[in-house]
Amino acid sequence: MSKLKVGIVGASGYTGEELVRFLVRHPGAALAQVASRTLADVPLAKVFPQYRESISPRLAFSAADAPSLAREAIDVWFLALPHGVAASFARAFVEAGRRVIDLSADFRLSTPELYKEYYDSEHSAPDLLVAAPYVLPELMQDDVWKQAPLIACPGCYPTSIQIPLVPLLRANLIKPTPGSIVINSYSGISGAGKKNETTYLFCEREGSVKAYGIPRHRHLSEIEENLSKAAKTPVIVQFNPHLAPMKRGIATTITVPAPGITTGQVYAIWEKAYEGRRFVGILPPGQHPDTAHVANSNRVDMSASIDPRTENLIVTVAMDNLIKGAGGQAIQIMNLIAGFDEAEGLA
Amino acid sequence: MSKLKVGIVGASGYTGEELVRFLVRHPGAALAQVASRTLADVPLAKVFPQYRESISPRLAFSAADAPSLAREAIDVWFLALPHGVAASFARAFVEAGRRVIDLSADFRLSTPELYKEYYDSEHSAPDLLVAAPYVLPELMQDDVWKQAPLIACPGCYPTSIQIPLVPLLRANLIKPTPGSIVINSYSGISGAGKKNETTYLFCEREGSVKAYGIPRHRHLSEIEENLSKAAKTPVIVQFNPHLAPMKRGIATTITVPAPGITTGQVYAIWEKAYEGRRFVGILPPGQHPDTAHVANSNRVDMSASIDPRTENLIVTVAMDNLIKGAGGQAIQIMNLIAGFDEAEGLA
Amino acid sequence: MSKLKVGIVGASGYTGEELVRFLVRHPGAALAQVASRTLADVPLAKVFPQYRESISPRLAFSAADAPSLAREAIDVWFLALPHGVAASFARAFVEAGRRVIDLSADFRLSTPELYKEYYDSEHSAPDLLVAAPYVLPELMQDDVWKQAPLIACPGCYPTSIQIPLVPLLRANLIKPTPGSIVINSYSGISGAGKKNETTYLFCEREGSVKAYGIPRHRHLSEIEENLSKAAKTPVIVQFNPHLAPMKRGIATTITVPAPGITTGQVYAIWEKAYEGRRFVGILPPGQHPDTAHVANSNRVDMSASIDPRTENLIVTVAMDNLIKGAGGQAIQIMNLIAGFDEAEGLA
Amino acid sequence: MSKLKVGIVGASGYTGEELVRFLVRHPGAALAQVASRTLADVPLAKVFPQYRESISPRLAFSAADAPSLAREAIDVWFLALPHGVAASFARAFVEAGRRVIDLSADFRLSTPELYKEYYDSEHSAPDLLVAAPYVLPELMQDDVWKQAPLIACPGCYPTSIQIPLVPLLRANLIKPTPGSIVINSYSGISGAGKKNETTYLFCEREGSVKAYGIPRHRHLSEIEENLSKAAKTPVIVQFNPHLAPMKRGIATTITVPAPGITTGQVYAIWEKAYEGRRFVGILPPGQHPDTAHVANSNRVDMSASIDPRTENLIVTVAMDNLIKGAGGQAIQIMNLIAGFDEAEGLA
Repeated sequence: MSKLKVGIVGASGYTGEELVRFLVRHPGAALAQVASRTLADVPLAKVFPQYRESISPRLAFSAADAPSLAREAIDVWFLALPHGVAASFARAFVEAGRRVIDLSADFRLSTPELYKEYYDSEHSAPDLLVAAPYVLPELMQDDVWKQAPLIACPGCYPTSIQIPLVPLLRANLIKPTPGSIVINSYSGISGAGKKNETTYLFCEREGSVKAYGIPRHRHLSEIEENLSKAAKTPVIVQFNPHLAPMKRGIATTITVPAPGITTGQVYAIWEKAYEGRRFVGILPPGQHPDTAHVANSNRVDMSASIDPRTENLIVTVAMDNLIKGAGGQAIQIMNLIAGFDEAEGLA
Repeated sequence: MSKLKVGIVGASGYTGEELVRFLVRHPGAALAQVASRTLADVPLAKVFPQYRESISPRLAFSAADAPSLAREAIDVWFLALPHGVAASFARAFVEAGRRVIDLSADFRLSTPELYKEYYDSEHSAPDLLVAAPYVLPELMQDDVWKQAPLIACPGCYPTSIQIPLVPLLRANLIKPTPGSIVINSYSGISGAGKKNETTYLFCEREGSVKAYGIPRHRHLSEIEENLSKAAKTPVIVQFNPHLAPMKRGIATTITVPAPGITTGQVYAIWEKAYEGRRFVGILPPGQHPDTAHVANSNRVDMSASIDPRTENLIVTVAMDNLIKGAGGQAIQIMNLIAGFDEAEGLA
Repeated sequence: MSKLKVGIVGASGYTGEELVRFLVRHPGAALAQVASRTLADVPLAKVFPQYRESISPRLAFSAADAPSLAREAIDVWFLALPHGVAASFARAFVEAGRRVIDLSADFRLSTPELYKEYYDSEHSAPDLLVAAPYVLPELMQDDVWKQAPLIACPGCYPTSIQIPLVPLLRANLIKPTPGSIVINSYSGISGAGKKNETTYLFCEREGSVKAYGIPRHRHLSEIEENLSKAAKTPVIVQFNPHLAPMKRGIATTITVPAPGITTGQVYAIWEKAYEGRRFVGILPPGQHPDTAHVANSNRVDMSASIDPRTENLIVTVAMDNLIKGAGGQAIQIMNLIAGFDEAEGLA
Repeated sequence: MSKLKVGIVGASGYTGEELVRFLVRHPGAALAQVASRTLADVPLAKVFPQYRESISPRLAFSAADAPSLAREAIDVWFLALPHGVAASFARAFVEAGRRVIDLSADFRLSTPELYKEYYDSEHSAPDLLVAAPYVLPELMQDDVWKQAPLIACPGCYPTSIQIPLVPLLRANLIKPTPGSIVINSYSGISGAGKKNETTYLFCEREGSVKAYGIPRHRHLSEIEENLSKAAKTPVIVQFNPHLAPMKRGIATTITVPAPGITTGQVYAIWEKAYEGRRFVGILPPGQHPDTAHVANSNRVDMSASIDPRTENLIVTVAMDNLIKGAGGQAIQIMNLIAGFDEAEGLA
């Protein structure tokens, strides 16, 4: 069987790096094009020394010219671009009949109005935005999305939050009031991307844990829209993001008022929702997830406890922000639309 | 003027190390005795290579024998011992008329019953427990405590929580219901002490953020007892502690329902409560504290925001767990009882 | 085709962890037995949470009883045990007709006398020691070793040193006098194993680079024996090992007097020696290897410069101590003796 | 007694930060001016949050205008500027009769020719260069330098190399041939300054040890010039610098051919040379210095071993690159020219 031909636009960042890592080893896919706005003609092996033994020395970056890339015989394109940049490539590729998996924030929301509210600019492709399904694979309720030309990949924080909460909201087990769900997330520095700013220097981040983006981080739009859909009622949460001194990983801890709810109920819903899903690790109460245990893996680990003193549910989650929160999840989506096992090349 | 003669029992851990660091440089105090249960006769300069240029090569550890230490002409003893061990030394020293500042958890609670509930054993000196004032210097409302023979030093997490919350509770600005105050704290690894356990190895903690001790960490007893005193009504909180991959530092983020409250009200109360207090840094809304900015300092930095969408108050705090959360705060207490400026030798 | 059945004795350390990681994903091998002296009956997925999605929940540790393990139908055993412990397992397995790849230091040297000199005890299986080939795959000069029942896997430091130097010594390009080759190596903390000692705690190693084991580290025996074989004359080197604050990785920098030698000569010899070998990365002069670029890879990267001022050759090397320096190299050996591609499951 | 009035030009980098840290606490000096090319009018406490409790909220950066700064009544100016920038400030201050301690590389060499050879540009103030003494306080052989208007502070690597080697060369104990002294240094990332480049991002440096600047780092000029003066004959060394994943610290390991020399001879020379010098820690053979033990200290620790197999001397050294390698040493120089104890404000 011939391999799926895949391409990446924007591979020079940390997310693009993960895509390359998985694709050069994927048994069913061939990395045929890697385009970059800044690295045209540079050999891939030079930019990704860590995968040097797996990358053909002849593979080089091509220029990120949407029209000419759209003419290439690529089955699936991954867009690993900053928000605001992905739309023009998505347009060209979709019109040329290619499949597109977008890892930016450009197509995650359901309306251009919400996009403008959180991203401070008009959406440049509102028709594509409205049409693109938002795909967190373990939470999809039918298979229609697998035919979509353009798919939006969830953000890192939102993935770590939806995996535990969506099944509980769908089951109507938890019924939050505005601001009563309190979410604290601690992200590795790669979450900010490869930005040459003082704040991301080694000397600034070593030994540093700090909050940022409180009270209104952009990911809130994506988090609340999807929790609300699951709850079938508006959900407004408190989201406190932080930076932690490590390259990769997100640890999320969620507190939810849960009067009358038992730990057993939570686990029963989770186990039913994630039966047979390899990338959700459900740990017993009291055994907390650890970012070091999911580093370099596409797995989300999670655990739940009910505090009898407060009648709160506390959920702890760990995930690799660059993998299940970005590149790994995108490959998982590709596997599903191409008919591979969802774990192909990922486990 | 002759210097204050001070001694330490249990100086081989990370907290003891900080005490030594400050005392060898303190202009008004002389470190006259350092006792250890395991290091008798070992030169201090060998155990504390980082302060080698400031420690007399003749100063060696003495044996941790309470009766004979009690006979030494020491003005103030610091106890940097595990909980359950401090009481016998405290007894001997107090009976010999010495002042004692205890850094363990042994004398922080107000009743032996509460101690037993959280520490799973009978308190061995309930009379001392009841008598010992719990001293977080910036929060004391009179000077009576300065005469107490035995003083209990607050724990690290509790300090980072009380500094922002106690003034707000005293002012009756916030009126929490059980479990509605949600506290997430991220501690450097030194918070666990110098324990030779796999979980504290470099290779286990690098790249790791993880929750632990949920839902009932021992510090809850101390936190809730003191918040309740401030509120003059029982306060029950949700406390989620975590480990972060750094040696020192605590970042605490607190969410409190605050309907109708403004950021200005919070800052006004804080500024009044901490006027002239050098070790409380009040940052403007949106500028979040950073553990790297308080490392090696006795300062607590904090900031507040109100989220208009949820009507929650979010407080972010950073502190060095080994200094303001332990050794530095103990020196600050010593400064106050000895009549020095509270910042002497600390800033 | 049925898969190769493999087993591991001593999988609870960092090296065993890497073996498990590669074997659960290896297309040609099945991990059938994992024995441990301390973890009998514990499920593997509990001890290796990081590979949870790839490990059958039914796979548990068996007891490390050599005679009963020898009766199991295992094709290849890996021994990931401390030195001094491997010999009894090796004896039982070899006598039962199994193949054994030993990752300890027990069978690396060629004589029991040299072993005693460096390891301070009599070798317990001198006949096996003498018979076991020492296999650094890229440096083997024939295929006879592939039939050996017991194979010794090289140490981490020695691998990083032999890969660059052995071809140059075999070609007689460099002709060292005693002590004129100066080797400085910086190892991640995992090189010390999973030892619960104060010196390996996170709080002791963060921010710490320090030398140790100077001037006579045990690996010297293995380094010098093999360099001498390559040079066909005794080679005595200066070896300065250090610890660096990271989990994994070795950076080795070697200075060799090289009067009259050109960089081109060095590269010509390297390129010939490693033609077609996927796991040796030869970088151009001036582009230095980086431990972060070989982390989680079985590759050794290296580069060479001649300093015209001193007529010294300086070689810089980077490698993952747990992979090419231990578990990955062992899998590579298994691949070769089983007739797989040497990179199977590794790239 | 009135305090010494000091000023800093270029305080926004890591070295300037250390100067501020020591000066705000110094009992004999008052930080009266802090000038910056980019931060004019910004309050110091904002840029140095870590010293917030010790910095007057009224102290703000002034513009870095040499002529107007030269008119200020400042006793001693510190220049913490990039090389090439310091000269114009030095000129203006010296002409106005101020004392200047320069931390850049601009005045460290003795001739403009050598400067041009290593720094690729003409020196802009050759007369000042020739006149400025190079002051590593522990190695000065008379007090004449204390009167010099402009003093050059040594670089970080050179300090860690000269402290152990200069006394041995002066005593003629070691007699190196070209390239036979092999120096490997491992520096914390702050050694590169606060540069917004990809290579210094947290995500690039975590887990990374790598060589750079081989075979001809700029510091070689300073190292060799001063070792040659000590030896009274040209000394040519091999210098291999590396980056290590930590903020601060330099670990240097030096190998020197030492036929017939004993460890005792080395220690005897060191003890004589550094008798009474508080900032040189001489550790016994086999006890190696650790960068974590000198972090935040102005001390250099060092140790020596002779390897009887190779007749090489191996010296291991640890130092804080930002303190004894920069800001601390500059304060030590200020102390000496102002007549304070050399450790004033530093220990």
